[in-house]
This record gives sequence, structure tokens and C-alpha cells, in this order.
Amino acid sequence: MTKQNSIVKILNENKCGSVIFFRPDELVMSIGYYPTLGASFCLYPSIGNPILFIPKLEPLTFIPKHCTIKRYSWGTLGINPWDELSHLMKLELEKLNLIDEPITYIKDIGGSSPSASHGEGIPITLNILENLSNISTSKYKNISDKLITLYDIKSECDIKKIEVVHEVTSVAINTFYKNLKDGITEGELAGIVELEIKKQMDLNEKKHVTGWCYIHSGENTIYSGQYAKSSGKLIKERDVVLMELAICVNGYWSDTTRTGVVGESSIEIEKIFKIINHSQYLAIENMKPGIEMKTIDKIVREYIKSEGYEEYFQHALGHQVGFRYHDPGQGLNPDSSGILKPGMILTVEPGIYNPKFGFGIRIEDNILITKNGYKNLSGK
Amino acid sequence: MTKQNSIVKILNENKCGSVIFFRPDELVMSIGYYPTLGASFCLYPSIGNPILFIPKLEPLTFIPKHCTIKRYSWGTLGINPWDELSHLMKLELEKLNLIDEPITYIKDIGGSSPSASHGEGIPITLNILENLSNISTSKYKNISDKLITLYDIKSECDIKKIEVVHEVTSVAINTFYKNLKDGITEGELAGIVELEIKKQMDLNEKKHVTGWCYIHSGENTIYSGQYAKSSGKLIKERDVVLMELAICVNGYWSDTTRTGVVGESSIEIEKIFKIINHSQYLAIENMKPGIEMKTIDKIVREYIKSEGYEEYFQHALGHQVGFRYHDPGQGLNPDSSGILKPGMILTVEPGIYNPKFGFGIRIEDNILITKNGYKNLSGK
Repeated sequence: MTKQNSIVKILNENKCGSVIFFRPDELVMSIGYYPTLGASFCLYPSIGNPILFIPKLEPLTFIPKHCTIKRYSWGTLGINPWDELSHLMKLELEKLNLIDEPITYIKDIGGSSPSASHGEGIPITLNILENLSNISTSKYKNISDKLITLYDIKSECDIKKIEVVHEVTSVAINTFYKNLKDGITEGELAGIVELEIKKQMDLNEKKHVTGWCYIHSGENTIYSGQYAKSSGKLIKERDVVLMELAICVNGYWSDTTRTGVVGESSIEIEKIFKIINHSQYLAIENMKPGIEMKTIDKIVREYIKSEGYEEYFQHALGHQVGFRYHDPGQGLNPDSSGILKPGMILTVEPGIYNPKFGFGIRIEDNILITKNGYKNLSGK
Repeated sequence: MTKQNSIVKILNENKCGSVIFFRPDELVMSIGYYPTLGASFCLYPSIGNPILFIPKLEPLTFIPKHCTIKRYSWGTLGINPWDELSHLMKLELEKLNLIDEPITYIKDIGGSSPSASHGEGIPITLNILENLSNISTSKYKNISDKLITLYDIKSECDIKKIEVVHEVTSVAINTFYKNLKDGITEGELAGIVELEIKKQMDLNEKKHVTGWCYIHSGENTIYSGQYAKSSGKLIKERDVVLMELAICVNGYWSDTTRTGVVGESSIEIEKIFKIINHSQYLAIENMKPGIEMKTIDKIVREYIKSEGYEEYFQHALGHQVGFRYHDPGQGLNPDSSGILKPGMILTVEPGIYNPKFGFGIRIEDNILITKNGYKNLSGK
């Protein structure tokens, strides 16, 4: 029986009109599609071909056969992707006359290994949590939005541990610049940086040390604002090379970016470097308790606009970081309702990605808000 | 305000008796604890100290202060960990007189980055899915158990792609043996293997290539059946060295293990190697359509028992693999209700971890069930 027949049989036997597959492994399993961004949705109907909704940011490397492809906005400032996705899905279900049939998706897929490696998520399912919260006679109460605010403020003890992450980050950044040369691939350079990170394991209480390094070079840097992936492309003389770096030490995180050039820079590259460095300086210099996060974003966005590059800076200026690679909570962006407070740590990561020039540049540091101002944990 | 005060304030204001933290970043954020296994639970009450439930498998590397530690069984054959955990939590809530107060946990913590790197999960939350399934006038219908059966059978097209993963796996295994020598750390050897995996990127349509290599050496191999983590320990002459390897190419996965020795083997090491190799041979030779999975497990478990080592083989013999590092579905274990079918791929991974001898040995291959028997994808 083909995969399509198996899926349709399950839908028919269980009186469902359609199923949504969304986890990367579900997409591979059902239609052989592997997303880079992890935000593609396959609406698989009981009649007709599956419809794959891919974010516009996603590079179309693999296109599965026998699928209708629809693109939706995501990661673009000012557009709510979920409203757009819902609307597009609704149109498809109406066309197929399935709008009144139940929709399904796999709720809890779980994990079968007790050892949560970095190749898979933690194996705790919603079912397990529901059972645990049933211990109380009053059951579960949802106050997720309140609990998530706990991520905002890092204690002094947390900050000390995050400073240790930045020691490892500094080793990784030096390794990047030292090995930045023509003749090796992006993947190889990423591997060399990650190897150096692994060598830090167990030095001075660093029990768990993991790094994820992503290298973009030359024209690939145009997409550095969109997704993190090294390729097999050879790094060449005069290439702009961007490193996106996530490091986790004992559960605490840094998120930094560096951009360099192999050999000689052009005038255009130098110009954009200057604008990015000045953007970051403007943001950081204005960071202190009481300032609205959207104000910091605005200062940078207006400066970049004054230089004529606003259309090439499409992402947020920064987000909170420390307990995760991307902490939940408000960040530096035009729609933010956040206010800077002592103990917060935010990335500041202006970037200009110019398809006309054929390169992109981003610099990213992690800034701790102190009582009176800020401290750049990334050591500048 | 201390973290504890902040948590208790949220609980009191929202009339909750206790909160369960379980995601690794939540544990770090709330009590500074980073689990290796990803299956620790912190029951944080509105009165008294937090109680941390740690699986017995978990090495006690970090112990957070001001926490009561409770251990529960997990990853041990024949014990249901969740029943034990529920029971232990209930006792604590009764002691604290909080059994009638609502329990809470963070339902959807989300992700703030559109680019799902391997440092964090996909950013799609339960809320997003609930909204999407509300498109239909008949809403959501839960048939997760039926849909998960789709993972069981790999199509011919899937199998071809999984064979490509095993080409990369073979490169990684050769790199492991080539670099297996004294004087480097476990982390460094893991990094060298991962670097070689990264060099395969973009060769022959391998667009996405990622590898996770974990090295245990010497006495650390005793814990190789429990968790995956390289350390900063130096590899020494005569060490048994075990490599656990997860590789993902274009969304398809392999899961293999190799064990080697630096320099000369002892008689004891040779003896256990022979038993493990013969165990694996016995399992694989008996794999064909129609055979019960538990029968394969039994053959191996009885043979290891006849050699006197049954107490040192505590985990399942194998699990399904291919769309994930650990596919959902039935596997090779004593409680399995699965039956081998053509198109299934299972790991076969007997292991003996002997604290008395001071070392552990495991070999793991991935076996495809064919029409008439099997094919070892790991190339033996």
C-alpha cells in the first residue's frame, strides 16, 4: 500500500476530512519533505493531493512531487503569519468541500529514548503532564503567560553562569577568525569551530558544553537573516563570511554573530560594516532600565533608513537570551511592549542583507541591563 | 525579588498550589538545574522547598541547593516510570497539604525564532495548532495513535534515502576508528567525527547533513546504556571506547554504535566483545516478516543470561528508526506487541555494562526487514 493510500485509509476509517503534518519528521514521513525552517505545514486531505504551506523565507531546495505548494509570510515584521496560514488553509478546505469534516493532527508523538540527546527533543508528552496534574483534586490551571515572565530577569548567580558561556563563545569567535580562509567549505569551518567548543568540555566546571555554528559565505550571506544552515560551498577569496553561533554551557546560552571577509574588502563591504557597527553602538549606548524596547529598535531602524538601507533590514533588532537560545518574552522590535529592566539580557543584532550587492552583514552581541546602564557580555 | 519569591508570588496571585517545571530550560531558570536526560521534574510548591524528581539513571553531576531530591525509576525494563512519579509527587503534595490546590505547568512556551536550528525545537505551539484545527466546523479529532502507525513502514523511496544516511554513517565510523588513540579527550574525538560528517554536506544531493557523536571511554562506558554525553576525560591506552552516533541526512536518520579498544585488549574485554557480537548475530539472523518482536529480544536476553551477564543488559534490544533518531512504534523488548513486517527498520543494540569489570560494550546496527528476511543497512 502506498503512503498516500495508508493516510487516506486512516482518515476515512476515522471519519476525518484532513490531517495537518507539521513536525519535520512527520513531513519527511508523509511526503518526503525536509524543511530548513521547521515551520512548514502539510494539509493532507482525504481527497486530492496534499497541500504544503511553506514560509516565504524558506529556500525551495527540495520540492516534493504530487504536492500543491502554497507560500505564507513568516518572520517578516508586521505580518501575523498564523492569520494568513489559517486563511489559506480555509480556502483549500472549502475548495475540497471538506470544511465541515473534522481536522486532525498528531497531538503527542513522544520520544522513545530516555536519553534526550541534542538530536531529538525531551521525551515528555502532553499525556504525561496531564496525568501528573490530575494528582490534585483541583486539576490543572493554565497560567502559562504569568510563569513565562520568570524568564525575564536573570539573578546574579545566573549572570555569573552566563558569563562562563561567553568565555567559551570568545574561544569560538577566535577560532572562526583564525580559520577564516579560502579553500575550505562552510561546513568544514563550522565543524572546526564546534570541535574547538567541544575541547572546552569539563574545563573549570563546564560539565555540559555544546555549540552550534552556522557559516554562510559569499552570496549565501544574503539569506543569513532568514535561516541557519552551513552548506558545502567553498569559501573564496573576497567572500563575506557570516557565523551564527549558539553555545550552551551547563544549560545557559549565548547567541552571537560575527561577520568577516576573506582577504581584501571592497568599498561597499566597508560601508555596510560601518553602518552595522554604528547601528549596534547606537542601540547599546541607549540601553538602560526604564527605556521601552521599541524605542531601541526605532533608533536603529531610523538610522538605517537615513542611510537608505531600511528595506534590507527585515528582522527584529533583538530578543531575550540566556535560559534558551531564544528566551520567551518581549524583545527589541517595533511591536514590542517590553521595558528594559535590570537583570534582562538581550541580543542586539542589526543586519543588512543586500541582494544587489550580493552579500549580507550582521553583528550580534548579548547585552545585560544593569542598575544604571548595560554590560556587553560579548566582551566588546 | 529572589526567584523563589517571584514563583511563590505568581502561584499565590493565581491561586495555584504548585507548579511543575520539566523543560530543561525551565529547570535551569527556576532552580539552576541542568539535566543530562531531559526527564527531571521539579514540583515547586507555594510553601516549602522545591522537590526535584530525578530519574535513577541520571548521573548526579549538579545538585541544586535548597531542593529536596527524590529519585524515580526510568529507562528500566518492566517498571512504569510515570506511575512511580505520580505516586511520589502525590505523597509530597499530601505532606504539604496542597493536594486540593490546582497544579500548573507551562503549556506552550513556544519559540521566538523562525529559524529552527538544532539548538532548539520547532517553534509551533499547541495554541497555533488548536487555532488551525478550528478552521473546520467539526473541529479537532484525536486519532494520534492511528497516525503514528504510519511511521512503521518505510517505502522504497524512503529506504533509498536511508541508505544514503548509512553512507555518511560509514564515513563517521571509519573516522572514529582512525582517530581512536590515547591522548585526546572524549569531546575532541566526538568533534573530529562530527567535523568529518559536516564535510559531507552538499556532496551528491546531501543538502542537510548533521551528526551527533557521543564518546564514552574507560569507566565512563559503564554508563553508555544510560545517557549520551561526551566528557573532557582523556582517552588512555587500554581504554574501551564507545561511540553513540546519530546522523540525519535530508531528514532521514541512522542510529548506530561502535565500541573499540585503544591498544591491547584484555581477556575480559575480548570475552564480552564475543558475547555482544554473537548476541547481535542471533537477533539479526532471526529477523524476518511475521516474527514477534519480543521473540527476538528473548533470544538475545536468554543467551546473555546463559553467559551469566543478564543483570548487565538492562535496556531494550532495539527500536524503530529512520524518520527520527528514535521512531515511535513497537520495538524489540520483552513487553513489545509488535510483529516484524517488510519495510520496517529497527536498531539491534545489545550491550553489557559491567561495573565490576569497569567497562561497557555495545554494538548497534540498523536492520531493514525485507520480503524474505533482512538487510543490514549498517553494512556488515
